[in-house]
Amino acid sequence: MVDAERLSIHQVTLLQQCTTPQFVAALVRNSVPCTSLWREKTLEHGVEATGRLIADNGIALSGYCFGGLITSPDRDEAARARDDVRRALDEAAAIGAPCLVFVAGGVDERDRNIAAARERALEGIAKLIPHARSVGVKLALEPLHPMICATRSVLTTIKLANEWCDRLGAEDIVGIAVDTYAVWWDPEIDAGIARAGRRICSFHVSDWLADTRDLRLDRGMPGDGVIDLLGLRRKVEAAGYDGYIEFEIFSQHNWWQREPDEVIGVIRNRYGKVV
Amino acid sequence: MVDAERLSIHQVTLLQQCTTPQFVAALVRNSVPCTSLWREKTLEHGVEATGRLIADNGIALSGYCFGGLITSPDRDEAARARDDVRRALDEAAAIGAPCLVFVAGGVDERDRNIAAARERALEGIAKLIPHARSVGVKLALEPLHPMICATRSVLTTIKLANEWCDRLGAEDIVGIAVDTYAVWWDPEIDAGIARAGRRICSFHVSDWLADTRDLRLDRGMPGDGVIDLLGLRRKVEAAGYDGYIEFEIFSQHNWWQREPDEVIGVIRNRYGKVV
Repeated sequence: MVDAERLSIHQVTLLQQCTTPQFVAALVRNSVPCTSLWREKTLEHGVEATGRLIADNGIALSGYCFGGLITSPDRDEAARARDDVRRALDEAAAIGAPCLVFVAGGVDERDRNIAAARERALEGIAKLIPHARSVGVKLALEPLHPMICATRSVLTTIKLANEWCDRLGAEDIVGIAVDTYAVWWDPEIDAGIARAGRRICSFHVSDWLADTRDLRLDRGMPGDGVIDLLGLRRKVEAAGYDGYIEFEIFSQHNWWQREPDEVIGVIRNRYGKVV
Repeated sequence: MVDAERLSIHQVTLLQQCTTPQFVAALVRNSVPCTSLWREKTLEHGVEATGRLIADNGIALSGYCFGGLITSPDRDEAARARDDVRRALDEAAAIGAPCLVFVAGGVDERDRNIAAARERALEGIAKLIPHARSVGVKLALEPLHPMICATRSVLTTIKLANEWCDRLGAEDIVGIAVDTYAVWWDPEIDAGIARAGRRICSFHVSDWLADTRDLRLDRGMPGDGVIDLLGLRRKVEAAGYDGYIEFEIFSQHNWWQREPDEVIGVIRNRYGKVV
C-alpha cells in the first residue's frame, strides 16, 4: 500500500507558513514528489516563475486549485466569472497542471433558487469546455461539503457530479475530484465512486475531526478524525483511479501554525498507514 | 397560505431567554397555538408540571425534542442510550406530544465506521418500536445536516430515512421529521419528500444564512437566508403533510439575545409570507 511516488501535498496545507518558493523548497528537502498549487499563491509569485520553479525542481503537479464560482443570476457577473475560469485554465496549462479543480459556486440571496443555480453551473461548464480542451487542462468537478453549499458549491454529491458529467458528454476533458472531507457522510458514496470510475481525476484527503468548529478551516490530519480514509482510497482505486493521493488540509489553528518540516513529517508518517 | 392555526414555535427558539413557564406565557400572550418542547427544559421544570402547564394553557404540541444518539459501538453504552430513549418516549406521552424527534447518533472514533454506525442505528430503532407503540408516541426520524454527522446523526438524507422506514415496516409508529435547514442542499430533496409522503410527521423551518459561522447555533430566521422555504412547504404539503409549521431557530448570537415578544413578532410576520 505504501507507494511514496503517489504522495502529493497540496499547497494549501502550508498556506500560512510558506511563500511558493519556500513551499517548493520544503517539498524538495523532504522528497515529496508532487503538489497541487493554490491559485492565489501562484498569482502572487507569478505564473511563469511558478512554472519554472516547479519544473526546475522536478516536482510533479496533481492539480491547480481552484476556478469556478459561476452561478451568479446576473448574466454579466456570470460571464466575467467564466472568463476568470478561462484565465485559470491558461495558468494551469502554463505551469503544467493536468487539471483545474472546479468549484461550482453557491446560491445567491437574490434568487434563493438552488435548482436554478445548479442549471446555471451546468450551462456555464458547457461553455468552458472548448477552452479547457484547447489548452488541454481537465475541469475536475469537485463536490464540496453541503455546509458550504450556500457560498461555494451547489455541487454537493458525487452522484450529482456524475449526472453533470453524463449531461455534458465530454469525458475527455471533464472529470471529478473526490475530496474525502466533502463526501464521507454520503450514504451513496460507494455507488457514486463506482459510477464515477475513471472520471475520478483527483483524490484529496483530510479527516473530519469529531469536534470540528469551523465550516472551512478546521480540517483534520488523516488519522485524527472519524473518516475511514483507507477504505475510501481502496474504493477510488477499485473504481480505476491510479493517480496521486493529495493531502489537502485547511487548518487555521493547528497545522497552519506548525513548522513546514514537522507537518510534512506527520504526513509522511500517516501516508500508507491511514490512507 | 396564511393559516395561523398551524403555527408552532419550538421551545429552542427562545432557549436562552425563557424558563418553560416564561416560554408558555409568551406563547399565550402572543396567541401562538402550538409548540414543540425541548427535553432538557422539560426535565428541568418537571415532566408532570410541564404537561399540566401546557394543558392548562390550551397549547397544542407538535413534538418533543429529542431522543436518540444510539450508535455507540459499545453494547452496554448503546443499551443505556436506548433506555434513555424509552424514558424520553414516556415523557413525550406524559406531556401529550404526538412524536419524539429522533436523532440517530454519530460516528465513533473507536471504530470510524459510518456504515456500521448506520446499521446499529437501524437495529436500535427496531428495538425501540414496541415501546413507542405501547405509549403511542411516534419516532420522528430526523435527517440532520451532514456537517453534524460525526457527532449527532449518521442519518444525513431524506432518502436514507425513507430506506430505514422501508426496512423497519412500522408506518404506524415511525415517521420522518423534515427540517429545512438540514436538507435544503440535497439534490434529491424533491424525490425524497414525495416518497416520504405521509411519513412526514414533523416539519421544522429555519433559514440558512449565507455567512453562517457555526455548525449548530447560527440558524437564520426564515426570510433571512438562501432557502426557498415556501417552495419546500409546498412540497411537503403536496406530499400529504397537513400538520404544524414549526419554527426552530438555534441562534446564539442573534435571536437568543432578543426579547421573546420581539422574536415571536418577527416569526408571526414571516409566517405565511416566506414560509
